[in-house]
Amino acid sequence: MACSVARERIPRLMAELSAGGMAAAVLCSRPSLRYYTGFAPPLVSSFSVQSPVLGACLLRRDEAPLLFLALELSETPFEEVPHELVVQYSLAVEETWPERLCARVGEQLQRLPAGKLGFEMRSCAAEFERRLEAQCPHLQFVPIEPVLARLRAIKDEDEVAAIREAVALADLGQEVIRGSARPGLCELELFEAARRAIDLRAGRRVAMIADLISGERTAESVGEPTTRQMAAGELLISDLGPHWLGYWGETCNTLTLGAPNPAQHRAFEALRDALGEGLAHLRPGVQAGEVDERMRKTLAAHGGSYFHHSGHGIGLLCHESPTVVPGCEMPLAAGMVVALEPGIYFPRHWGMRIKQVAVVTEHGGEPLSRFRHCLF
Amino acid sequence: MACSVARERIPRLMAELSAGGMAAAVLCSRPSLRYYTGFAPPLVSSFSVQSPVLGACLLRRDEAPLLFLALELSETPFEEVPHELVVQYSLAVEETWPERLCARVGEQLQRLPAGKLGFEMRSCAAEFERRLEAQCPHLQFVPIEPVLARLRAIKDEDEVAAIREAVALADLGQEVIRGSARPGLCELELFEAARRAIDLRAGRRVAMIADLISGERTAESVGEPTTRQMAAGELLISDLGPHWLGYWGETCNTLTLGAPNPAQHRAFEALRDALGEGLAHLRPGVQAGEVDERMRKTLAAHGGSYFHHSGHGIGLLCHESPTVVPGCEMPLAAGMVVALEPGIYFPRHWGMRIKQVAVVTEHGGEPLSRFRHCLF
Repeated sequence: MACSVARERIPRLMAELSAGGMAAAVLCSRPSLRYYTGFAPPLVSSFSVQSPVLGACLLRRDEAPLLFLALELSETPFEEVPHELVVQYSLAVEETWPERLCARVGEQLQRLPAGKLGFEMRSCAAEFERRLEAQCPHLQFVPIEPVLARLRAIKDEDEVAAIREAVALADLGQEVIRGSARPGLCELELFEAARRAIDLRAGRRVAMIADLISGERTAESVGEPTTRQMAAGELLISDLGPHWLGYWGETCNTLTLGAPNPAQHRAFEALRDALGEGLAHLRPGVQAGEVDERMRKTLAAHGGSYFHHSGHGIGLLCHESPTVVPGCEMPLAAGMVVALEPGIYFPRHWGMRIKQVAVVTEHGGEPLSRFRHCLF
Repeated sequence: MACSVARERIPRLMAELSAGGMAAAVLCSRPSLRYYTGFAPPLVSSFSVQSPVLGACLLRRDEAPLLFLALELSETPFEEVPHELVVQYSLAVEETWPERLCARVGEQLQRLPAGKLGFEMRSCAAEFERRLEAQCPHLQFVPIEPVLARLRAIKDEDEVAAIREAVALADLGQEVIRGSARPGLCELELFEAARRAIDLRAGRRVAMIADLISGERTAESVGEPTTRQMAAGELLISDLGPHWLGYWGETCNTLTLGAPNPAQHRAFEALRDALGEGLAHLRPGVQAGEVDERMRKTLAAHGGSYFHHSGHGIGLLCHESPTVVPGCEMPLAAGMVVALEPGIYFPRHWGMRIKQVAVVTEHGGEPLSRFRHCLF
C-alpha cells in the first residue's frame, strides 16, 4: 500500500510545481524523503547524527524519480522508488558522501532544460545548495517548503495508520508508567521502564522525545526525567513522543502518587472537559484558533489556565501545522491530525497536562489513542 | 575551567581567521557551539529534532562574542559566553525562530566593515545562509570547516576529561551486558539493561548510538538490537557510543554465551594483539595509515581480517579525523583522541570486534577506558 501511495503523491506534487513553473525538484529533508519515497532512516545512528544530508530525491516531470542514498542508510528496508547507492561502503564514507552526492545529483541536474528547480532551502545544507547551483547556472533554485507543507497537512490513510501505531507506543508507555509509579522511584527509573516496554513492543529501538516531571517540577510544564525521587501525594506529568517509521505519536497524562486530593481531582476533571471540548470542535471548517478559544474558555470556567499552545499538528514533524493557538485562522480539514494538550499550572507549586492525538472528521476529532487519561 | 578554556579557544580561532583575511565568523554547528561557547543542547528534543538551526555565535575581532539562542534551548545550564535569547517563549516558537534568528544575526552583521566572513557552510541551512547574504551584500561568506576541524583535532584537557566520562558510560554498559548476557534473552533486552544503567549513572537521558548483534548477525559487523533471542554458544558484539555533554565515547566488546570454543578464543586473542599493536603506535608523528597497517598485519599473522576502518578520531563528532585507514598520511599528534577497532568476520557465520578509545601520547595510546575486553 505504502508504495502505491508514494507514487500517487509524486504526480500530485509535480502538478503543483508545474503550476509554479517548475519541471523538477530536489527533495532532501527527512519528512520529504519519507513522504515521497518511503525512505525512513533511523533518527539516531552514527551516520545520521553527523551527515549533513541523508539522501536526495530528484523528481522530474514525465520521468521516473531518482533517489540517491548512502549505503549505510540503504540498510533500511526500502523498495518504493528506484534508487542508486551513491557511495558503496568505503573506509571513510562520511567524509566523501556529501561531495559524491552533489556530483551525482549535479550530473542529473545538468541534463535538465533551463528553468526553475524546486528546492528545500530550509533542510538542505548551504554547501550542498551552493555546489549544485555552481554546477547548474541554467537552473533557478526556488524554495518549495510552503507547497510541501500544504500537501502534507491532510494525512493519507497510511499516514493515519502510522501515526496510530506511534500513538499506540506512547499509550503503552503511559500504561507502564501508571502501573509502575510509586513513591521512592525516581523519574528516570519510570521513564526507563516505559521506554523498555515501547522498544520491546516495537521490536527495535524507538527514538522518543519526552517530558517526565514530578512534584514541584510539574509547575514548569516540561522537562527531562531526572533522578528526583517521587514522594506520596505528588503529581507526575508524563508526555511521551515516540518516533515510529518516520512518524511521531504523542500521549500525555498526569498521575497522582496515591489518592488525589479534591483540588487535584477538580483540576483533572477540568482538563478532561477542556480536552473534550477541543475534540468536539476538531471538525472541517472550524478555525484552529476557535478550538484554542473553546478549550481555554472551558478551563477558565473551572478557574484554570495554561500559557502554552492548546495543540499542534503532528505527523512527519512532531510539531507542524495547524498550530492551535489564539487567533490562528487556519481552517481545519478532514484528515488533519492534531494533538490537543490543555494544562493547568500553579507556579512553584504544581501543574497538570493531558494530551490526545486525533484526526479531524465531520463528527469531531477521532482519537488515535486508546489510553484513558486517569489521575491514579 | 570549561569557561576559561572556551575563552582561550576563541582568540586562537580569530588569529587563524585573521590570517585568512576574516575579521568575523558565524558559527552554528553543534560541535562549534559546544567547542567555542560550551553550549550543549540535547541531541534529541522536540526543538532540536526539527529546528533547522540550534543557535548562532558571532565572533568578532576585538569584540566580545555574541551567542543567539532560542529560549527552549537556553534551559541547558549555560554561562560561558554572553548570550541573548532571540525568541522568548511564544506559542509557535519553532515557526518563528529561524526568521528571528536571521534578523538578529543579520543586524549585527550589517555593522561589520566590508570583507570576508567565516561561515559554516556544511552545517548551516541554505535558507539561513541565503537570508544573511541578502542582508549583507558587503560581506563575502567563506567556508571555514577545514580550519575548525584542524583546531579541534588536538583535544584540550577538559575535552579529554569529557570523552573519558562518555567512555566510562560506555564501559558501564559493557559491564552490565557482560553481567546480564545469557541464552534466552533477546538483544533488545540486553541493550535496554545497559542503557538503563547508563542513564541512571548519568542522572539523565543519554543519547547513544549502538550496535548489538548476536549469532550469525555478528558476521555483518554492525546492526541495531532486535528481538532475536540469543542461544548458548553464540557470539554477541556490543558496540556502545554514548553522547555525553556534547562529546562521544565508545567501547566495543565481543562475548560468548557460555565458554568459548578454541577458534573463538584464538580469534579474540588475535584481536587483542591487533588492538595492542595499534595502541603501541598511537604516538606523535606516526601516520594514521601506519597504525592501520600494523593492526591489519598483526591480525593477518593469526589468519584474520576486517573490511572496515581500523579506527577513527572521536570527540564532538563520533567519527572525525584522523581516520585510521590504509594509506592515510595524517601524522598523529599528542592529544588526538582515537578509537581503534579491529574485527574478524566470517561471512554468514560469525564475527568479533573490540574497540578502545585512547589519547595519543609519547608513550603510545593511553586508554580512556577502564573496561577489560573479555570473551565471557
